[in-house]
Amino acid sequence: MQTILKGTGQEVIISPDHPTVIIGERINPTGRKVFSAELQAGDLSRIPQDAVAQVRAGAAVLDVNVGAAGVDEVRLLPLAVQMVQEVVDVPVCIDSPNPEALAAALKVVKGRALVNSVNGEEARLRAVLPIVAEYGAAVIGLCMDDDGIPTDPEARVAIAEKILQRAEAVGIKPQDVIIDPLVLTIGADHRAVLTTLTTASMIRTALGSNLTAGASNASHGMPERELLNTVFLTGLIQAGVNAPICNPLKNALAVRAADLMLGRDEMGMNYIMTFRQHQQQQTGG
Amino acid sequence: MQTILKGTGQEVIISPDHPTVIIGERINPTGRKVFSAELQAGDLSRIPQDAVAQVRAGAAVLDVNVGAAGVDEVRLLPLAVQMVQEVVDVPVCIDSPNPEALAAALKVVKGRALVNSVNGEEARLRAVLPIVAEYGAAVIGLCMDDDGIPTDPEARVAIAEKILQRAEAVGIKPQDVIIDPLVLTIGADHRAVLTTLTTASMIRTALGSNLTAGASNASHGMPERELLNTVFLTGLIQAGVNAPICNPLKNALAVRAADLMLGRDEMGMNYIMTFRQHQQQQTGG
Repeated sequence: MQTILKGTGQEVIISPDHPTVIIGERINPTGRKVFSAELQAGDLSRIPQDAVAQVRAGAAVLDVNVGAAGVDEVRLLPLAVQMVQEVVDVPVCIDSPNPEALAAALKVVKGRALVNSVNGEEARLRAVLPIVAEYGAAVIGLCMDDDGIPTDPEARVAIAEKILQRAEAVGIKPQDVIIDPLVLTIGADHRAVLTTLTTASMIRTALGSNLTAGASNASHGMPERELLNTVFLTGLIQAGVNAPICNPLKNALAVRAADLMLGRDEMGMNYIMTFRQHQQQQTGG
Repeated sequence: MQTILKGTGQEVIISPDHPTVIIGERINPTGRKVFSAELQAGDLSRIPQDAVAQVRAGAAVLDVNVGAAGVDEVRLLPLAVQMVQEVVDVPVCIDSPNPEALAAALKVVKGRALVNSVNGEEARLRAVLPIVAEYGAAVIGLCMDDDGIPTDPEARVAIAEKILQRAEAVGIKPQDVIIDPLVLTIGADHRAVLTTLTTASMIRTALGSNLTAGASNASHGMPERELLNTVFLTGLIQAGVNAPICNPLKNALAVRAADLMLGRDEMGMNYIMTFRQHQQQQTGG
């Protein structure tokens, strides 16, 4: 099953046969105080450099989220998307809980974007899916619904199925729904990542969907988070996650290492090129 | 399926339900010039410190190999095993291609040792299995035979089955044969580790055996080997390898991170304790 996204110059294919696609997570004010304050002041000037750095580090798609408290996303999200597309040619992933902001951004985006996100909640399904269909975009479907995030994998898979059915009912094809099995914090539940791995494997086998996941939060509160993020990303990719959302400046080489391990990198060329790129960035070369 | 090993004080259970057991690889002259030269001069004085350091870092079993060129293993291997057992109470893994040396070491070992190794070669099966049976030890069975190391997982599984059958014929129970699906260098074949992962999953499902593997060599010749070793160890453990042979001073935290990910570490206590132990070692505390 192939999800095809387009930027101004790059077409990206997300598919189990292809190398893992990194969705760069950095353009997001969550946990970034300075960026939050800038967005609240209407200052988007940090965005171009964040876009360029992430693509250089190995991101093939860029998430764009401007949701700091008090920010008018309907106004700022389209501007942010345009700024990104002026400096990099990769597809964007438009990230907002506000359907109006999603629509405003989809109106100006070039190529074929990914929308982050819908989930199994009735209100979200009704508000987001028609917009995704109208603009011919692809969408991320989170495995949660009006009852929250289920603790058992079967229930998460059932939500994924429901999202796929509701998407198809408004004309969005199954290959254009990327499922996020959801990763919770391991410090709160030591089986949290295992539940995600099991859900991912089940969805890959039963539904064949492409899969995304954000691994960074799972290590929250634990020591040596970079090691944990490497290990969790490896596990997620091995379980079938083929479009993880992560920080390419820190995690791209781990993703390429996982691809190398899984036989998706002939001669190790992607791994070695990413290594050299990161080495140059570190030495300022 | 449980493999039970014993040292002078510790009983170690290798089982899919239990935390991953680290077999410390350091007492081995391969790639260690100074240690090789010392062994050639009959000097075993480095062994106690290597034993203590590895157990402190998280090894639950220690591999003991004195096979440098020109070394009389029949004489030195038993001495090395005794020296290890004087300073640490964990089980040992007696490592030699020489059946006479294995027998001499098994004669003096305390507790219940693991023998490294037999494989599917006729001569090895005939020479090693009777010794393992005589001393009531457990044994590692490598997935290679007189035709070499097969490139397809099915053929490796067939060798594992043959080793298990031949072991049972001389009175060694299936739970006392730990299978090594073999990891080749990824630089030589980009599908090398994937073949190992597939073999490991198949053996775990079809035969239920406990599994070992040495991940360190797979990254030979590639940059950022420590990252690759972390990723490969994670993948192997996720595929069912539950007694990897590795360097605990470098890899123990990655193994504990993989266990944490797989839900085998309640409250993350093993991970956090290993982190603190390594922190203390680094600060000399």
